[in-house]
Amino acid sequence: MPLKVAILGFGTVGASAARILSERNLPGLALTHVYNRNVARKRVDWLPSVIWTEDLDAVLASEADIIVELIGGLNPAHDSVRRALEAGKSVVTANKKLIALHGIELESIARESGGHLLYGAAVAGGIPVIPGLQHGLAGDNITRIEGILNGTSNFILSRMEHGAEYAEELAEAQRRGYAEADPTEDVDGFDARSKLVILARLALGANVSPDEINCQSIRQVGAIDFAYAKDLGCTIRPVARADVRNGNLVALVGPMLVPFNSPLAWSRGTENMVLMSGQYGGDVVFSGHGAGGNPTAVAVVSDLRAIAAGTAPRAVQIAPAAVTGEFELRHYIRFIVKDRPGIVAEIAGAMAAQGINIDSLFQRSGFGKDKLPFVVTTEPCVNSRLKLALARMQNADWQAEPPLDLQILEPEPSVVA
Amino acid sequence: MPLKVAILGFGTVGASAARILSERNLPGLALTHVYNRNVARKRVDWLPSVIWTEDLDAVLASEADIIVELIGGLNPAHDSVRRALEAGKSVVTANKKLIALHGIELESIARESGGHLLYGAAVAGGIPVIPGLQHGLAGDNITRIEGILNGTSNFILSRMEHGAEYAEELAEAQRRGYAEADPTEDVDGFDARSKLVILARLALGANVSPDEINCQSIRQVGAIDFAYAKDLGCTIRPVARADVRNGNLVALVGPMLVPFNSPLAWSRGTENMVLMSGQYGGDVVFSGHGAGGNPTAVAVVSDLRAIAAGTAPRAVQIAPAAVTGEFELRHYIRFIVKDRPGIVAEIAGAMAAQGINIDSLFQRSGFGKDKLPFVVTTEPCVNSRLKLALARMQNADWQAEPPLDLQILEPEPSVVA
Repeated sequence: MPLKVAILGFGTVGASAARILSERNLPGLALTHVYNRNVARKRVDWLPSVIWTEDLDAVLASEADIIVELIGGLNPAHDSVRRALEAGKSVVTANKKLIALHGIELESIARESGGHLLYGAAVAGGIPVIPGLQHGLAGDNITRIEGILNGTSNFILSRMEHGAEYAEELAEAQRRGYAEADPTEDVDGFDARSKLVILARLALGANVSPDEINCQSIRQVGAIDFAYAKDLGCTIRPVARADVRNGNLVALVGPMLVPFNSPLAWSRGTENMVLMSGQYGGDVVFSGHGAGGNPTAVAVVSDLRAIAAGTAPRAVQIAPAAVTGEFELRHYIRFIVKDRPGIVAEIAGAMAAQGINIDSLFQRSGFGKDKLPFVVTTEPCVNSRLKLALARMQNADWQAEPPLDLQILEPEPSVVA
Repeated sequence: MPLKVAILGFGTVGASAARILSERNLPGLALTHVYNRNVARKRVDWLPSVIWTEDLDAVLASEADIIVELIGGLNPAHDSVRRALEAGKSVVTANKKLIALHGIELESIARESGGHLLYGAAVAGGIPVIPGLQHGLAGDNITRIEGILNGTSNFILSRMEHGAEYAEELAEAQRRGYAEADPTEDVDGFDARSKLVILARLALGANVSPDEINCQSIRQVGAIDFAYAKDLGCTIRPVARADVRNGNLVALVGPMLVPFNSPLAWSRGTENMVLMSGQYGGDVVFSGHGAGGNPTAVAVVSDLRAIAAGTAPRAVQIAPAAVTGEFELRHYIRFIVKDRPGIVAEIAGAMAAQGINIDSLFQRSGFGKDKLPFVVTTEPCVNSRLKLALARMQNADWQAEPPLDLQILEPEPSVVA
């Protein structure tokens, strides 16, 4: 008897998943129910033997063995997934927000009631990061994750590399349907943060809540920053990274300077990329299409197949982790100043007062004296001290605009036998 | 009760796997036996409670639940693995040659006797290509594989990019221990071919035997070819590729021209990389350390964990595939000629006689007339016809050396919704 599958939410991903199931005729799986509001407008003729319904309760009470939750958001997704698991069903979901916020609770229900909770589609869509991690890297002790987990931000930043400003490329992303009218979730890092929370849990065994991780927006990055970054042998990418230092989780989301010879610099357009460093195996990189109906649906169907084949992993117990802001990294700080003598001395003084060493200080020519961009890079320094130094300068009369402070990513040399 | 694990072969990989098991203290797994010839010289004090033995039969007859075969080669590896599976044990192996030649037979024994046969370490060592494929891409229909599957060849070719000749970089690879005294297996493509056979089976469902796939050596590639390739926007990498066209498997191993903007061009040194194209999810790229004791041991231990967790996939039935040499690709042909009038006309005539269109014809300056390299590129043409055209010219008095014929790899645009 094939397992009966009910899809909740027949949008792009739901329709793609149904199409793959129907076209590939996969063993052990039968699509039986499709739930959507106003389901009549969703009905398609290539799914003849499916029950189309607007009655969520009826689907949850049905004989379906697996619920595919593609409604998105928290309500009614959270309640539906919990009820399905409590009823002993398995759940496959692409809902990163739900898993980031409530994954631990839901996995514990799944463990108790004997169902599976799989969410390979929640991180980096079509790239098998979660299965790769759970099956292929299970032998290693993962110590660091770095990823480009939001395609919209990567589209914008990787195109700005060629001289455009943020607003132009945001508009282009919106024209192409990559960015929403309100792009907050993508460009301010919240979408990537949910995914980082999930990866930190699975790869580093660290349980953190999304609001403990600081997000920096890409909105303040300008074309001038790519010019300066280039002088430093770097480009700028939207990075989510996490590692464990002295028992604390160091986790950050935001635009960062990435060396041109780092794999992260190769990713362009809406591509996603995840780099994982293991104690034994060194760096492994996964890349591909992180979003879109079909790639995400591939991850959903792969999870369904794992359940049908009896090869789905059980949730493991995860330890809560303390998140620290006290990490040491190199920084790039771009000031926009009204030029006058003494500015460098003031900056250097504020930095020195916090024990921060300046690594370089440089400016490009061709800008007016009243709005002059120039850049300071620091040696690795404690984040909170740099914030203090910048705060001390924030009301200085020479600051034409607030400075932009970005981390400089330096891949640690990969340790391999 | 943890599963009892016996390691056959305590070389670099075996010792790394034992160390990971011992350091990580993984649940459900207990290392109980180590077999090696002259085992006394292998004994280590950090594995106190293990039986060290030179008696292979005794290990195969022991109560061990899982045999880790790291002897390599075919004899006695083949016989040992078969006997272990017949006895109902599971087997984890890194032996690509064994799996490429006898995997189908061994998987059928595993299916019948209820054991598992896992070989994640046989392809691209520490990169979870096989688990990524079996678990994370199970939802997709994979249509094409392209990979850099041999680190030694990639080390040599990626360094030749900077102007060195083959012999220098082979010597450097040998100095570093990446290449053997007899480098045949690596540089002539046989190692990569075994891995391609395994990937073609798992990703494309095509059962081919290694000797059906043509291997081209990297020995004939010279510094001059990198200079010409650069003029074409390409570099040269050792590529193994397979796809299915009109029901035939098109599979090739050898140095190929790779566009600079292809992910394959990014791979450097001993790195491995695998690109898989799916009908639904588009291109996914995996990269990392394909060899070395620790990365390979990570793959071995990951397979052990999958068996312990009950999440190891069962072997599937695979259909035999016909391999064709009749594929159409663009070609790069580098001639070395004793210059005289009429050569171009002769080449063009031989090509035209086989219906092959010449795409470009060019030469770099600065070479003597008696040993003049020049390059012809073709439009996509049937391989066998090009071979006929080249054969017709092979005895021409103007040929100072045999020509070098390389495929030009053109990534098909990735199809994604």
